[in-house]
Amino acid sequence: MRMYDIIERKRDGRALSEDEISFFVSGLVAGDIPDYQASALLMAIFLRGMDERETLALTLAMEHSGDTVDLSRIPGVKLDKHSTGGVGDKTTLAVVPIVASLGVNVAKMSGRGLGHTGGTLDKLESIPGLLTSLDRERFETIVREHGAAIVGQSGNLVPADKLIYALRDVTATVGSIPLIASSIMSKKLAAGADKILLDVKCGSGAFMKTPADARRLAECMVGIGAGANRACVALITNMDRPLGRAIGNALEVVEVVELLHGRGPADLERECVELAANMLLLAGRVPSLEAGRTAAGRAIVDGSAFERLREIVAAQGGDIGYLDDTDLFVRAPIEFEVIAPRDGFITAMDTTALGVCAVELGAGREHVDDEIDYAAGITLIKTRGDVVRGGEPIARLHTSDPARLDAARPIFEQAVFIGPQAPAAEPLVLARVCASGFERFD
Amino acid sequence: MRMYDIIERKRDGRALSEDEISFFVSGLVAGDIPDYQASALLMAIFLRGMDERETLALTLAMEHSGDTVDLSRIPGVKLDKHSTGGVGDKTTLAVVPIVASLGVNVAKMSGRGLGHTGGTLDKLESIPGLLTSLDRERFETIVREHGAAIVGQSGNLVPADKLIYALRDVTATVGSIPLIASSIMSKKLAAGADKILLDVKCGSGAFMKTPADARRLAECMVGIGAGANRACVALITNMDRPLGRAIGNALEVVEVVELLHGRGPADLERECVELAANMLLLAGRVPSLEAGRTAAGRAIVDGSAFERLREIVAAQGGDIGYLDDTDLFVRAPIEFEVIAPRDGFITAMDTTALGVCAVELGAGREHVDDEIDYAAGITLIKTRGDVVRGGEPIARLHTSDPARLDAARPIFEQAVFIGPQAPAAEPLVLARVCASGFERFD
Repeated sequence: MRMYDIIERKRDGRALSEDEISFFVSGLVAGDIPDYQASALLMAIFLRGMDERETLALTLAMEHSGDTVDLSRIPGVKLDKHSTGGVGDKTTLAVVPIVASLGVNVAKMSGRGLGHTGGTLDKLESIPGLLTSLDRERFETIVREHGAAIVGQSGNLVPADKLIYALRDVTATVGSIPLIASSIMSKKLAAGADKILLDVKCGSGAFMKTPADARRLAECMVGIGAGANRACVALITNMDRPLGRAIGNALEVVEVVELLHGRGPADLERECVELAANMLLLAGRVPSLEAGRTAAGRAIVDGSAFERLREIVAAQGGDIGYLDDTDLFVRAPIEFEVIAPRDGFITAMDTTALGVCAVELGAGREHVDDEIDYAAGITLIKTRGDVVRGGEPIARLHTSDPARLDAARPIFEQAVFIGPQAPAAEPLVLARVCASGFERFD
Repeated sequence: MRMYDIIERKRDGRALSEDEISFFVSGLVAGDIPDYQASALLMAIFLRGMDERETLALTLAMEHSGDTVDLSRIPGVKLDKHSTGGVGDKTTLAVVPIVASLGVNVAKMSGRGLGHTGGTLDKLESIPGLLTSLDRERFETIVREHGAAIVGQSGNLVPADKLIYALRDVTATVGSIPLIASSIMSKKLAAGADKILLDVKCGSGAFMKTPADARRLAECMVGIGAGANRACVALITNMDRPLGRAIGNALEVVEVVELLHGRGPADLERECVELAANMLLLAGRVPSLEAGRTAAGRAIVDGSAFERLREIVAAQGGDIGYLDDTDLFVRAPIEFEVIAPRDGFITAMDTTALGVCAVELGAGREHVDDEIDYAAGITLIKTRGDVVRGGEPIARLHTSDPARLDAARPIFEQAVFIGPQAPAAEPLVLARVCASGFERFD
């Protein structure tokens, strides 16, 4: 088999065989296939596409390109949850303790923030003492005893994805549905969970800008799950504005604590309940989504989800004093209020720009080795759809560096649009995709 | 300017600007653009195409990526001729002395054979003593004194083409009209001639398999010539069978000598006369193609073209004794006759396979540093359209190595098709493309 022929076949719009796809993936990892051939193939895939069978084969070849996690020593069904990345998306921190408190095991490997989206590990690490790099045994013990743990990736999982992603990133081939889906799903499959809930973000703060693209990605990933015998459900959720009111690591942990005390922003709570209900249904803990929503809501109201968060944080070495009294979190020395320039409604938000603004303030990374300022970020006092009066504060920018504030302010101001008319309401959860089909929510 | 944005723009089917194209070409030559980005762009160009303006810009950027040849010290109009590569194509060796004997200057840089097509330099070098690497001054002197010289490329001409071609060759992006046209034309423009005759081969032995593709390539190259202010004419010529009867270096030189004595195969003579007539018209030496054909035919009949070939060969150090008595050429120790298995007509020839067969016999190179056996090759006793009788010889295979004969025989036998019906006659010159339009010959 020759890489040349594989490139030629895809260039001409023909489907690749399983053998050809695994020749490419294993050759790339072995260093036998040069980057220039790989990038030519990736561009051909970008422009010619891949059918369902090819995308599954690519995902499975990538999954098996390195180590895979064996969760079989943890009894019961193990669930995972994945978000395609948003701004202010702290749902994992709330949903994991909610479902764990209801008997669902979540052995979760999370990532760090890069670019305009945050990462769950960074948020967790704003709790002093908390460790996200645990050895295998400790990880499994915590999941067995508390139903959930959230750690960083360990071992050599999916090395093919690192190589392919690095090439896609510099050859304008990131935005291809089969390449995105295989990248996400190969890592989820290698991480070993039995069933996976996918949260596909859609809108100005997401990689998928339109519902049509989000649906294509969701259907592609759910199809891969079915082909790999791992039940998957995807929710398509709104990212035309940040989720909740807090953007930034410690700020988001505090918002999660508020949420688990029943005092969270309504949008965030509704989305967390919806995600939790789907995980409960996937795990077979409830007979219907409606029952799942009721159970999740009750876990918030009766405090059991918060109690479970304390357990997990304590087990991972975190100081639960910070959960019990969130005033302990260090506050950024600079808190700048952004003032509405005129009366009106917030008609739209460039959510990606708000993510970039938070990174400017110190909450994220532009490069993998940048340091994070856990206290930095944005508190939205007003969000999309809210009425504002000229002169009143619409947001608070938190940072420890005046130069960062100067850089961040204009980004924020250009990202928030105030107009005379209230914008049309947008659904929070746009649709649900499962193996049996597509269901739109209005 | 970023290479990423250039790739993205072409990926999305948009046209690149002159600045973007020269950023790519100069960055590639400077080593600033990595191969994996270049190959992603080449695949995007392959699949999305380039318009006329982009193709011209690419050609000019490539032309100026290294040295260019200045022929201004040679008085008069300087012509060049380029063939896209065929099997048995020895036309340069005949056409150059024909037109030089009629007052047209040809300062010709030729190439070597690679793959199934032969190269003019290799053919010439089968004449003992002949040098194709001459210094600039000697080259110019020979052109001034004898009207023509045929040498190898010297200096760092079009380094961008070497880099781009090497990548295209391993990423399945060779067969793109704008990339082929810019590769050929950048080298022709850099070689300094004022006017260029292009011989675009079409058929089973050519890179362009169909008349439609050949026409697209011819029109693209003639358009580049017009844009670069160098008048170009292209002939589209038949390569569904080898040209003439000889394939292989010394064998082809002998056939050229026969031709210049008026004893050449009719197809070869007609094509050489047509090419020469077009060069004479381009150079302004004749008022019409018909007058050019007459002049070229006369230069053959009256011996002036042969006399001019002797002069040029002598000036380049070649032993003209071999031209005067072609029996001096070393003959291959093995001459194997291929026998027709049955009565019929030769209905078709896989001309590429015949080129491969000649390489197997030792006449060409599979790798750039392979040695050539000048005596090796094929003499066709019968060719497409001829009647054959079972048991009579249809070709002679010349080689010095029995193992090569064993490898070459089955290739030859599978490349020649004998059937009961005479095939339809095919025109030798299919069409002529010049700046004012396309003209089909029947």
